[in-house]
Amino acid sequence: MTVATESPLLARLKAVLAENADLYHAQQILEWDARVSMPHAGAAARADVASTVTQLAHGRFVSDEVGKLLDDLDAAGHDPDSVEGALIRITRREWERAARIPSELAGEMVQVSGVAVAAWDEAKAASDFESFSPHLERQLELKRRYVACFPETEEPYDVLLDEYEEGLTTAQVEEIFGRLEGELVKLVDRHREDSVEEIAGPYPVERQQEAGRLVLEAFGYDPESWRLDETPHPFAAKPGVGDIRLTTHTDERDLTSLFSTMHEFGHGVYEFDIDPSLARTPLGRGTSSAIHESQSRTWENLVGRSRGFWRWFYPQLQGLFPDALGGVDEGSFVSSVSAVRAGLIRGDADEVTYGLHIILRFELERELLAGTVAVRELPEVWNARMKESLGVEVPDDARGVLQDMHWAGGLFGYFPTYQLGNVISVQVWDRARAELGDLEEQFARGEFSPLRQWLSEQVYRHGSRYRPSELLRHVTGSDIDPEPYLRYLHAKFA
Amino acid sequence: MTVATESPLLARLKAVLAENADLYHAQQILEWDARVSMPHAGAAARADVASTVTQLAHGRFVSDEVGKLLDDLDAAGHDPDSVEGALIRITRREWERAARIPSELAGEMVQVSGVAVAAWDEAKAASDFESFSPHLERQLELKRRYVACFPETEEPYDVLLDEYEEGLTTAQVEEIFGRLEGELVKLVDRHREDSVEEIAGPYPVERQQEAGRLVLEAFGYDPESWRLDETPHPFAAKPGVGDIRLTTHTDERDLTSLFSTMHEFGHGVYEFDIDPSLARTPLGRGTSSAIHESQSRTWENLVGRSRGFWRWFYPQLQGLFPDALGGVDEGSFVSSVSAVRAGLIRGDADEVTYGLHIILRFELERELLAGTVAVRELPEVWNARMKESLGVEVPDDARGVLQDMHWAGGLFGYFPTYQLGNVISVQVWDRARAELGDLEEQFARGEFSPLRQWLSEQVYRHGSRYRPSELLRHVTGSDIDPEPYLRYLHAKFA
Repeated sequence: MTVATESPLLARLKAVLAENADLYHAQQILEWDARVSMPHAGAAARADVASTVTQLAHGRFVSDEVGKLLDDLDAAGHDPDSVEGALIRITRREWERAARIPSELAGEMVQVSGVAVAAWDEAKAASDFESFSPHLERQLELKRRYVACFPETEEPYDVLLDEYEEGLTTAQVEEIFGRLEGELVKLVDRHREDSVEEIAGPYPVERQQEAGRLVLEAFGYDPESWRLDETPHPFAAKPGVGDIRLTTHTDERDLTSLFSTMHEFGHGVYEFDIDPSLARTPLGRGTSSAIHESQSRTWENLVGRSRGFWRWFYPQLQGLFPDALGGVDEGSFVSSVSAVRAGLIRGDADEVTYGLHIILRFELERELLAGTVAVRELPEVWNARMKESLGVEVPDDARGVLQDMHWAGGLFGYFPTYQLGNVISVQVWDRARAELGDLEEQFARGEFSPLRQWLSEQVYRHGSRYRPSELLRHVTGSDIDPEPYLRYLHAKFA
Repeated sequence: MTVATESPLLARLKAVLAENADLYHAQQILEWDARVSMPHAGAAARADVASTVTQLAHGRFVSDEVGKLLDDLDAAGHDPDSVEGALIRITRREWERAARIPSELAGEMVQVSGVAVAAWDEAKAASDFESFSPHLERQLELKRRYVACFPETEEPYDVLLDEYEEGLTTAQVEEIFGRLEGELVKLVDRHREDSVEEIAGPYPVERQQEAGRLVLEAFGYDPESWRLDETPHPFAAKPGVGDIRLTTHTDERDLTSLFSTMHEFGHGVYEFDIDPSLARTPLGRGTSSAIHESQSRTWENLVGRSRGFWRWFYPQLQGLFPDALGGVDEGSFVSSVSAVRAGLIRGDADEVTYGLHIILRFELERELLAGTVAVRELPEVWNARMKESLGVEVPDDARGVLQDMHWAGGLFGYFPTYQLGNVISVQVWDRARAELGDLEEQFARGEFSPLRQWLSEQVYRHGSRYRPSELLRHVTGSDIDPEPYLRYLHAKFA
């Protein structure tokens, strides 16, 4: 029999954190709704609502009470390796970051993002950068104010990175991206003259949605707890335990929706499989953006672009699209979905060119923040760099600088975690293969649960109990390391 | 040129009220989402989130600061007939009611409702009253605790009525319902042997949805600001300016979805047409439940069951349902959708039997609260009274005591406002016809905007600026009065 020994201090902290988690979940619903359900004219009022909830949550969290509770808990002593130790550590980290920021600024950032995302939506539809540029200026101004709350951090961009990835520095990203860039460029060059064609559709939207459902069900999606919707920009959200929401974007001209769906499944399953005992605490979320992205990229690429997966799924896909795929054999199809093709859109990019899209954004974000690239010059700079790095001509801003919603949403510092996620995904994958044997053979039989269970056990169930770097060491015995990823790319594409 | 003379006190009050309105809108989204979008397994976590937001909003609103602001504003003096005067008056009313309630109780009511509505959903699907009864017990216990916060109110049910309808008493409702009941029973008896048959479907769901959209567009629905979804129990919500959400329930066996859609449009248009200058204040909502229901019943019945409306719409409906309606002439159709037929379901009831459904609930609510009817006896009592009042046998609890979600949601005291809405709808309608001339002729041409504009001007745009009784006197020159409604029923059904 276990006797409950939770201290009144810890119980009080947990009560505060539960309230905070509830407000975070309310924010998730407000945002999910704004992107999936809200009528267009509701955007301004919604921005007010989201801002108020954020400001209130922030104000309550940064109260002196929480600081005092943390001090008292530290003074009382606790095992740093226990769940309670992790809870206190992560709460202190979040509290110390949040306490730097005035609640008004926290609210304003959400308010401006709500309005800017709605403006971006229209600007992208009209390929009209100019109408979006005042919103981007405003976001940059707010980011600079935010960064200024951390005056002891020498490199401004470090402040932004640390929010998504504890302890990550710009220097580290530069080093890793530096190692990758040359190799990626070489691989892209090697494939520049490839003639692997895209397999022409059309792929009717309802059939693609059916294909997505078949794959999700095999992966472990359960409609009792999950839902899947359409949005222009796919994303995943968890507004509470038992409530996982994925979105995808389906276009009848190609099959990218299927890969988006698998990508978002990776985010969803990470959140879904977190130990429920961590719910309503800051431990009840994935530990970092790069670890999160490693899992979305695992399910999208390492599973979803593998030969084993297609051995299982291709006959079903052919059945859904007899006109487009009836005469295409499995090998040609798999080559086509993995082919290296320098293109305009990050979200549609293959595994090799993807990294170059990220490196462009990583550079531009720092230049925009520093003011060395002005907002008005941005389209021109974007187009020139796309030409230089990928060799493509950008025909309009909708397919150029306006393609991603991240800047509209104020998510500066997020992009690098996508590419770090790619790097990490292969580190974890190598370990999974070493322990689980021939995964491709399992996939070929439609068996994905051994992989999911292993990932749950190793990664998902822990939520934020371990720092991202600690978790990576636990699972792989290594720090973040681009070499396994490069080996993977070379084996697949060289 | 107008010089801004808003006092700092008033500006501060408005800031507090804007925050409060934002949190109210957040609650609307949480509830709309729970009923429209949320995966089933998310209900428990959602109840926590909704409870936290409510508790927080309540705690901030009942703070001493608001009381002090109201006192200072009253001391400073203001014109009670001005918008500011109305704002201060209604804020004081809400503040004095809210301040009686502990924030924990406010939060608990929302928490229990979230869980109880999910349980009701399952219980109704399985027609299993027993699984729902502990939730109903819990709701009643909370309602008794709530009522006990107003110890000076002699009649407990008055406390509940006043929440939906300022100043309304149980004695008034008894008097009005007493006047109606005998007449309604006589009318039902007169039609008991009628042989107006329901026109058999099926009416394919997609076609009904198309019919609903055609009607909504003619009424003035604009997809830029409105949306329409399916839920088991139709409702309307406004989570912010420019964001009006209706739901309906479509069953291919009949056309009730169309009437639900028109009903919810009435709620939606009232909220949509409120003067935007009242947004983010307590004046920016409809003034009471009965006035709200008067408008939903106006668009559902006085418009939607009128001969003029069908002169315009019936040919379109026939076009959508050629199999079911091709051989049915307009006159027979209109007789059928207005026919008096004693039935099981309140939501599907005709204009005559509807009131008897409400009277049953009004009586049962008071008996349940008083404990003179126990929860375990409820199905038996329900079934006996349905037999007595409407002469129908209730075959199962799904079509009996479990049909409405109100008690699961804790909405005791709401039902009477539906029938008062019917009464008020005709009072306002008589005035509209006196001013606008032959409305049926306009409807027959598909013209609904003169009516809408008049209602906007007279009722909608004012929001809660006037008390319900004041508004009714402004518009009709009269207090609430069942005689016009009875004259209408006798003219139509006797």
